[in-house]
Amino acid sequence: MAKDKKKVEQITDMEVDFAQWYTDVCKKAELIDYSSVKGMFIYRPYGYAIWENIQKELDARFKELGHENVYLPVLIPESLLQKEKDHVEGFAPECAWVTMGGGEQLEERMCVRPTSETLFCEHYKNIIQSYRDLPKLYNQWCSVLRWEKTSRPFLRHREFLWQEGHTMHETADEARAETMQMLNVYADFLENILAMPVIKGRKTDKEKFNGAEETYTVECMMHDRKALQAGTSHYFGDGFARAFDITFTGRDNQLHHPHQTSWGVSTRMIGGIIMTHGDNNGLVLPPRIAPIQVIVLPIAQHKPGVVEAAQELIDRLKAIGVRVRGDFSENSPGWKFAEYEMKGVPLRIEIGPKDIEQGQCVAARRDSGEKITIPLGELEARVGELLDAVHDGLYAKAKANLMSNIYEAHSLEEAKAIQEEKGGFIKTMWCGDLECELAMKDKAGMSSRCIPFEQEHLGDVCPICGKPAKTMIYWGVAY
Amino acid sequence: MAKDKKKVEQITDMEVDFAQWYTDVCKKAELIDYSSVKGMFIYRPYGYAIWENIQKELDARFKELGHENVYLPVLIPESLLQKEKDHVEGFAPECAWVTMGGGEQLEERMCVRPTSETLFCEHYKNIIQSYRDLPKLYNQWCSVLRWEKTSRPFLRHREFLWQEGHTMHETADEARAETMQMLNVYADFLENILAMPVIKGRKTDKEKFNGAEETYTVECMMHDRKALQAGTSHYFGDGFARAFDITFTGRDNQLHHPHQTSWGVSTRMIGGIIMTHGDNNGLVLPPRIAPIQVIVLPIAQHKPGVVEAAQELIDRLKAIGVRVRGDFSENSPGWKFAEYEMKGVPLRIEIGPKDIEQGQCVAARRDSGEKITIPLGELEARVGELLDAVHDGLYAKAKANLMSNIYEAHSLEEAKAIQEEKGGFIKTMWCGDLECELAMKDKAGMSSRCIPFEQEHLGDVCPICGKPAKTMIYWGVAY
Repeated sequence: MAKDKKKVEQITDMEVDFAQWYTDVCKKAELIDYSSVKGMFIYRPYGYAIWENIQKELDARFKELGHENVYLPVLIPESLLQKEKDHVEGFAPECAWVTMGGGEQLEERMCVRPTSETLFCEHYKNIIQSYRDLPKLYNQWCSVLRWEKTSRPFLRHREFLWQEGHTMHETADEARAETMQMLNVYADFLENILAMPVIKGRKTDKEKFNGAEETYTVECMMHDRKALQAGTSHYFGDGFARAFDITFTGRDNQLHHPHQTSWGVSTRMIGGIIMTHGDNNGLVLPPRIAPIQVIVLPIAQHKPGVVEAAQELIDRLKAIGVRVRGDFSENSPGWKFAEYEMKGVPLRIEIGPKDIEQGQCVAARRDSGEKITIPLGELEARVGELLDAVHDGLYAKAKANLMSNIYEAHSLEEAKAIQEEKGGFIKTMWCGDLECELAMKDKAGMSSRCIPFEQEHLGDVCPICGKPAKTMIYWGVAY
Repeated sequence: MAKDKKKVEQITDMEVDFAQWYTDVCKKAELIDYSSVKGMFIYRPYGYAIWENIQKELDARFKELGHENVYLPVLIPESLLQKEKDHVEGFAPECAWVTMGGGEQLEERMCVRPTSETLFCEHYKNIIQSYRDLPKLYNQWCSVLRWEKTSRPFLRHREFLWQEGHTMHETADEARAETMQMLNVYADFLENILAMPVIKGRKTDKEKFNGAEETYTVECMMHDRKALQAGTSHYFGDGFARAFDITFTGRDNQLHHPHQTSWGVSTRMIGGIIMTHGDNNGLVLPPRIAPIQVIVLPIAQHKPGVVEAAQELIDRLKAIGVRVRGDFSENSPGWKFAEYEMKGVPLRIEIGPKDIEQGQCVAARRDSGEKITIPLGELEARVGELLDAVHDGLYAKAKANLMSNIYEAHSLEEAKAIQEEKGGFIKTMWCGDLECELAMKDKAGMSSRCIPFEQEHLGDVCPICGKPAKTMIYWGVAY
């Protein structure tokens, strides 16, 4: 079969080599390309279109909650980066430095932003004077640079696209509420738009953001049972505000430091989509984010009336806002089937002379392969239902993968054995000490993923050191 | 009067000091702020929102014509930049160079992109093999760096936001048609969305883009009668394709070099909006791009029913897609009038107890100050008409400014005298020689703006050298 031949030629089976399967999908579905700049990638039209849809959805949610977009400089003077001690320690080793400009050596070198807390703080110092100026709810869409040693499409780039929210509040309570609100925006977006189930929780002190008091995370499980941190939301207290001397006159007429948050997601979410939903035929895109939601394919298109009938389907779907395209090229139907499967288009609709005779068309779901005959009169309603059904199907499958790969362990050895045999997330109790966290990393190769909001009582002691346990925690191997 | 007091305090009159008026408007309307990075500015929410509206309008036009968005790396290795001789000569002196990354000296320094022709060419070399791969119609939204010596909000930044289109075509004719099509997209956008009349034409060889065969431009006239180059579209021929060894197999089964274009507009258009439409009360925004199109102000808002009536106006306008806001703060009506005038909101609507009694509200146009009573039943229709009327009014005023400040000269001395006395655009015949262009710059302080598509015969000889004239040309002092 031509189709199977193509499939085998193009994409490595994920069971054979998951990493190669992933790279194949990124390249063959034309999401990304390598550039001559080591560790930096080219976002190709199909990959960038996914990001544009993510942006559109998230941006609307941010604005609905009162956030405003701004744009701050791409360069940060070294002295500014150094103002907050923990922050510079975390980021300085990964910085790319501009040392020359306009043919001259700069008096002070500047890093290409790895994140913009410092620039936002400097700006906030200028524009915040009174409690009346609060809250400030800013967001920025941009690229950031982190000079990583290794790279991987979408998951680890030296330059990647993201959004960074930075907010300032009158009280700690308000800032904490914002931190949690934005974590929930991410969780809701991942589950309801990207069909990616999440575990919400707090990062340990070891894993939190450099300079933050608290970091919260949404963790997802990939098809290979590894973890992907899909988004984080940080509460800073007034640490940066003190370091940057940001003050405001409060309702009590006294000077106070404002309380701060930041939160971000990046194009690594696209890596998450691929590794959550993809299969051996290629990409599988969640319908609410797919650049092409429906591909219409004419069958026996040289027969009279077929092209017109296909075009009519396209026009009708376009009219109700479906992202639809047709392929009227001379390629064979088999080639087209494989091509749009590989590209992860959620729904394929075929129409040929027999269908026209019978007043119908045939839809095929990308997630399940199921074929559904649709009477032409019911096209709009049925396509809407089917796109929702594909979303639900993808979510259910991913949720089942997550739930069936969470294991409980009561000793470090047991945790290690489960990880080696099955992978997945391993839940244990934990005393809260860094030593035990490091021991788990050293001996079982797992980092802490999060202290989940949904706690369970699995025992009284930390299985690593035997001291009293404070909390339940998830461990896993992460991207 | 409180309102006049505020006005005088905040914004310098443009007749007194146009440059200071401009800076005052940028700062006081909260479009922009200075950062600690010399020559780099902060796009504040109100300024960035204008850019977002520009992006939305242009992006839709680009996509409608088949263009796709991509994102390429922010860094360009020096060796890549050097591949096209004219290009590197033009840009190298303005580059900012990254020389260190991840704590180590880089083997090869990389510049932060000043423009991306070289990266696009490298990518196109990888993805273009056959005429079937053409045309490639890519666009990128990003920021670029140019290490300028002086800076000015929106007009000259060391970092600015822009879009850069880069396309590859099978034939020279097709590439030329694309070059012209995109120039026309810019002209149409400027006139019909930003209410800025343009003169379309071709740049002289001296003023064309480094590496281009031909550069086309849309030139606008600011309120102070200086010129602003608002957008450019370049035809490259196959020069870059040869330098980068990009080839494709043609319909004749032979290898060919594709033909290339690029085109761009930037946030300097926002500077153009300010200097075209602004007045001594502040910003005046063209309605189709204004972040707030209508501000609704309740009068005597403590009186029963006023807040509710104002809110109803807001809800009704929102429902038809108008970008509308209300101000229910405790500030005085006089303060509010001045504030939203300063911010350039095209239409103000007031409603108070008397208006409610009479079933009406009162609109005030920002461009003319004219007050219009609107029966509440006609709100939606009248507001739509008024927003169009403000657009038309702004365009007519700007067009009158342009047309009444174009002068004809028949000697260099005459051109110089007109420029010193009146400013504006000065049209002359021209022999086409660089020497005469340089003489005009040297002696009259004017650069060539463009060789307009709409030619007139003003005489037979070049007024500078006396040799036979080839063309009519516009001269002016430019931002």
